[in-house]
Amino acid sequence: MEGDSALQLRIFDLNCWGIRYLSKRRQERVELIGDTLRREGFDLVLLQEVWSEQDYNNLKGKLGGCYPFCHYFRSGVIGSGLCIFSKFPILDTLLYQYSLNGYPYMIQHGDWFCGKSVGLVIIKISGIIFNVYVTHLHAEYCREKDAYLPHRLVQAWELAQFIRHTSKAADVVLLGGDLNMHPEDVGIRLLRGRTGLQDAFAEATHFEGCEDGCTLIPKNCFTDKAELLPFPLGVRIDYILYKAISSFTVTCKELKTTRGTAPGTDIPFSDHEAVMAMLHIKRQGQAARDTLGTAEPMMADVVTEAQTEVGVGLQAAQRQRYSTGRMAVLALLLLLVQATAALGTLVGLGTEQPFPKLSFSLLAFAAIGILLLATGLHLFHTTEVKMLQGTEEQMRMALRALQERP
Amino acid sequence: MEGDSALQLRIFDLNCWGIRYLSKRRQERVELIGDTLRREGFDLVLLQEVWSEQDYNNLKGKLGGCYPFCHYFRSGVIGSGLCIFSKFPILDTLLYQYSLNGYPYMIQHGDWFCGKSVGLVIIKISGIIFNVYVTHLHAEYCREKDAYLPHRLVQAWELAQFIRHTSKAADVVLLGGDLNMHPEDVGIRLLRGRTGLQDAFAEATHFEGCEDGCTLIPKNCFTDKAELLPFPLGVRIDYILYKAISSFTVTCKELKTTRGTAPGTDIPFSDHEAVMAMLHIKRQGQAARDTLGTAEPMMADVVTEAQTEVGVGLQAAQRQRYSTGRMAVLALLLLLVQATAALGTLVGLGTEQPFPKLSFSLLAFAAIGILLLATGLHLFHTTEVKMLQGTEEQMRMALRALQERP
Repeated sequence: MEGDSALQLRIFDLNCWGIRYLSKRRQERVELIGDTLRREGFDLVLLQEVWSEQDYNNLKGKLGGCYPFCHYFRSGVIGSGLCIFSKFPILDTLLYQYSLNGYPYMIQHGDWFCGKSVGLVIIKISGIIFNVYVTHLHAEYCREKDAYLPHRLVQAWELAQFIRHTSKAADVVLLGGDLNMHPEDVGIRLLRGRTGLQDAFAEATHFEGCEDGCTLIPKNCFTDKAELLPFPLGVRIDYILYKAISSFTVTCKELKTTRGTAPGTDIPFSDHEAVMAMLHIKRQGQAARDTLGTAEPMMADVVTEAQTEVGVGLQAAQRQRYSTGRMAVLALLLLLVQATAALGTLVGLGTEQPFPKLSFSLLAFAAIGILLLATGLHLFHTTEVKMLQGTEEQMRMALRALQERP
Repeated sequence: MEGDSALQLRIFDLNCWGIRYLSKRRQERVELIGDTLRREGFDLVLLQEVWSEQDYNNLKGKLGGCYPFCHYFRSGVIGSGLCIFSKFPILDTLLYQYSLNGYPYMIQHGDWFCGKSVGLVIIKISGIIFNVYVTHLHAEYCREKDAYLPHRLVQAWELAQFIRHTSKAADVVLLGGDLNMHPEDVGIRLLRGRTGLQDAFAEATHFEGCEDGCTLIPKNCFTDKAELLPFPLGVRIDYILYKAISSFTVTCKELKTTRGTAPGTDIPFSDHEAVMAMLHIKRQGQAARDTLGTAEPMMADVVTEAQTEVGVGLQAAQRQRYSTGRMAVLALLLLLVQATAALGTLVGLGTEQPFPKLSFSLLAFAAIGILLLATGLHLFHTTEVKMLQGTEEQMRMALRALQERP
């Protein structure tokens, strides 16, 4: 990149919906994704929900020629599902696992088991240091009564903090992923305000794709139509965000999404649409000020709004911690009563009636089961309370800093 | 800090041994620590094992006058136990929880419940940006047969990676904490080699304290004498490490440790000795090269050694994953056999003998218990395998980078 010439970077982002045994036509779609990526030759590919390591290895094998560098981020029971393919050497990587990510007992939602995380890879292209982040936040299963909102906000906050702290030596920051938040949601405003990241869709000179840039659309044959009823056009929850930190400028020349099917075929890549951006990176004479995207008085409002939601989550977690603790204590008391009764029988009290061995044993087992389960849940909700309190305090500290600034 | 004058910074580091109900004379010792800190007026205080938030709040109340800025890092069920008191404003914080930290079923060791982490606070003093890290790694319960070595190595690796990635805009990096590793251990060499951090004890112009700088000594009335039998002088596992990144130099003018009792009293602060350093920070004409502490061929050996140990841990974790999975399958089979027998009785087979309700129910409950327990453990060890594999791969990548350099 000499003189006025800009570095051109083509980025592909997709939530691949690659759940083994559950996602429809998975292997066929992974093949299709691999073929398209090989044909199109992007510079950077950011994928989510590649939960089968076999799928990753297949992609790696297929893409080795045109994307010689790649990284798979391992975490949680199932894995983070995050991976990156790159034309340029990956210099270093780091994984940050979000401290809260749903509940282990919500097995039908499964988010907890994925160990949702943000992955960072550092790439140098033509002497420019790129910090590339890929992430996937907790899903939203019911927008009207979103029980996971506090957890998603903690994740958005931790994502912003992680980017702020790790990107200080970068020239350009890129973030791609399924954020599971609509563009106007408080979590997106928090993330963008705290990091100064710009939305490729909003900034693109030229756009081609679904109306409003939606990435979850009723037209896609794999999406849940009932879920999208309130949104006839669909929703935009997959993003490519960027910013320049040092003496560079980044502009989005073109943004595209798929429109319900993969180009030239009749099946989609996934239940999500792919987002493809073409960025121009240009060196400029003087160092760009690392501006925050949102003016500070507005930012204070956003942090306050997020803090309120985290506070609501904290109250719920405290109630759960209390009720599971009480349940454990009750189970323990029942066991103690049973132990007393058993001892009484042993020393010869109440021998006029036969001892009800079967119902006694069943009750004891039930009590032990409840005790173990309630204790486990109590410990889980204790951790949840701690993390929500920690985030609330960090937000309070950020608010103080925002208010103290002249 | 003008011209040639150096900034002088006094740092206090202590593992406080503040386990509620278990640590001896805890409240008395916390009082003593608070009084000493107030009297001595350090610039920075890095504490570990402050597990009771009440203790932290007491310290905060007492120290508010001389250390107006402080932060408590919340994580895990019990908490990370980490906190920082500072004379200078804390600009920002970040917590990174280690991905592996022992086993939940090793309740007697308890490390898993603490959510061991590294905490970062950013402080600006006289225009110099300090990244201050405080951490506490997994304890070593048996040096001869250290089952936790792979986990501690993963933590040392993640600590190094976290420092590398978050400290790029800092002028000076400080790390204090109980690393639970002897100075020559592979984890310390890995951490120091990867980050370039220098050991305040080794670099100190003047030292005063326990021989060899030991921080766990037989003379301390709270230490386990049997554990220290192979080490008559004690062991050094608490550290203050530092480095300058940009155009600064850091020198350790003085390092002190307590010697089994708190100064002027007859009881110790804790079962660990406190480490106190006086650092001089000086601006120098040209930017210091961010040197890694260890020459690269040597560093490759250190990474290889660490990778081997992580590999040993990986094999053990894979065995555990397999045996817990097998146990779960066997319990499930037993339940199926029982269900078949019960069904057989219901349809009238084998009615010549009375159905053994009690033993049948007990067996079924035992099978359900084993199934749940084995499944939980299987999921846990699956995560463990993933994280060990992830670290091994990162180490491999680092090795390749070391070997490829000219």
